[in-house]
Amino acid sequence: MYDIIIIGGGAAGLSAAIYAGRSGMKTLVMEGTSYGGQMNYTYEVDNYPAVDDNPSGAELSERLKKHAEKFDVEFTTETAKNILGLNDRIKTVETRKNRYLTKTVIFATGASAKKLGVEGEDRFYGVGVSYCATCDGAFFKGQDVAVAGGGNTAFEDALYLARFAKSVTLIHRRDKFRAVPTLVERAKENKKINFVLDSEVTKIDGDTTVNNIEIINKKTRKKTNIPVSAIFIAVGIIPKSELAGKYVELDENGFIKTNEKMETNITALYAAGDVRNTPLRQIVTAAADGAVAATSAINYING
Amino acid sequence: MYDIIIIGGGAAGLSAAIYAGRSGMKTLVMEGTSYGGQMNYTYEVDNYPAVDDNPSGAELSERLKKHAEKFDVEFTTETAKNILGLNDRIKTVETRKNRYLTKTVIFATGASAKKLGVEGEDRFYGVGVSYCATCDGAFFKGQDVAVAGGGNTAFEDALYLARFAKSVTLIHRRDKFRAVPTLVERAKENKKINFVLDSEVTKIDGDTTVNNIEIINKKTRKKTNIPVSAIFIAVGIIPKSELAGKYVELDENGFIKTNEKMETNITALYAAGDVRNTPLRQIVTAAADGAVAATSAINYING
Repeated sequence: MYDIIIIGGGAAGLSAAIYAGRSGMKTLVMEGTSYGGQMNYTYEVDNYPAVDDNPSGAELSERLKKHAEKFDVEFTTETAKNILGLNDRIKTVETRKNRYLTKTVIFATGASAKKLGVEGEDRFYGVGVSYCATCDGAFFKGQDVAVAGGGNTAFEDALYLARFAKSVTLIHRRDKFRAVPTLVERAKENKKINFVLDSEVTKIDGDTTVNNIEIINKKTRKKTNIPVSAIFIAVGIIPKSELAGKYVELDENGFIKTNEKMETNITALYAAGDVRNTPLRQIVTAAADGAVAATSAINYING
Repeated sequence: MYDIIIIGGGAAGLSAAIYAGRSGMKTLVMEGTSYGGQMNYTYEVDNYPAVDDNPSGAELSERLKKHAEKFDVEFTTETAKNILGLNDRIKTVETRKNRYLTKTVIFATGASAKKLGVEGEDRFYGVGVSYCATCDGAFFKGQDVAVAGGGNTAFEDALYLARFAKSVTLIHRRDKFRAVPTLVERAKENKKINFVLDSEVTKIDGDTTVNNIEIINKKTRKKTNIPVSAIFIAVGIIPKSELAGKYVELDENGFIKTNEKMETNITALYAAGDVRNTPLRQIVTAAADGAVAATSAINYING
């Protein structure tokens, strides 16, 4: 019988585990096939405050897990399939093989970026292909970079990158943008930002890192090469909320709705990190969410 | 002319500085007399996720500052006195001697715990006197501890501590509690928790660490000694919002009201960390607030 079961072992889940375990709560983390989550794909973490030795994402997730292990947290690689007894004081988390009893559940299942699905995208992930300009943009000071997408995030990324990149080429498959007009105007005024419309990326190329992208104009079918050191892909983010969505309220994009205490609309069920409707998806914000969710669960358990 | 002026150099301010500086923003931190804020008074930080070498609070604030310095952030020990031109695109932050122009301001001025104002309280701060059970409770496993206060926080602290302490004595100066009835009932049911009512702490005693508190019954005037290893003081928290309160909306307790993007009710003014109406005051939550506030400021500046 557990006090807290945490589903997901990324920054949010492991931070929740640190707070829960340290508070003497019997805690189980269902980390699935691996812990660390999206951060594992980050070549170098430069902006987790106070950690200034630039660990790889895998190294940082290792530190998070070790930190949680200090507090007698239990881990399993099993995956939660169902939660039973939602309205009971004791709930059951069901995996394929087992049933675990718990007083509270924290969903920390994360999210993943939508991919373009083109050649080179996976191969150069972390070495020139990025899904997070705030995370990786600063590594490309004075270089030519590209952004794929036409929504607010793509424009925010382009404007963000334009502050230190030599040039930013924004590639969009349509000739109209979903982004709000103020962002579009601001980007158009920025001399560093170029626009390539009606075009799709067809290939990402390089040697050890990215040095070129191939695009095709959807109207003329003409192919062009653009030499860049990096491409920032901002075509959407997909929450891993299949399980949670069976029980708690999601927003229109499938993210779990929480209040600032990380409470969902169901008592004793919490959410933390990228899977919830958060304004920023960073390691430190996920870690803070985890701390808040665990504290809310602890206060609930304590009465 | 700055992009972002951050007022306050604690976890929230320094994290905002890391995010702002790393994004190429011209950034000034007004840290006042010292950086690090409240964390400086923490003997050992055990729960900042991924930092598991248990640094002192002063050491962790050093790491945060060094991290910010990597990104060309400027620092000044001057204190902001006024902000002029609130409705203009360029604002002026006035100190006693100088005027600084900026596009945005982040208030990260922190908060401080209310003190009992008794002998030994300052002397044993960090070695048995604590204002944060979530931070320091875990250091007192199997020991006798006290909590001073009668509100929700005092009861949450008592219930929290009861999970690992040997005993918890809750000392309250009245015979009625401000805490919600469910918390009070739960604490009364807990055999580890004792209540001493109508009583005030008059002295905190010890050698190198706390080993005794002296209390007085306000009705009988009788003095008693209670042997404890720690006292957790939960009699209130005071936001440092004098400056911000001249310009932005505060809640009924004087904390700055923000939304989840750390926006105040005035465009281009943000707040982060303990000074805002946050559900949890921890180093990691302050750091996350700083990251969000800086990102909101950057997005505003970029259009």
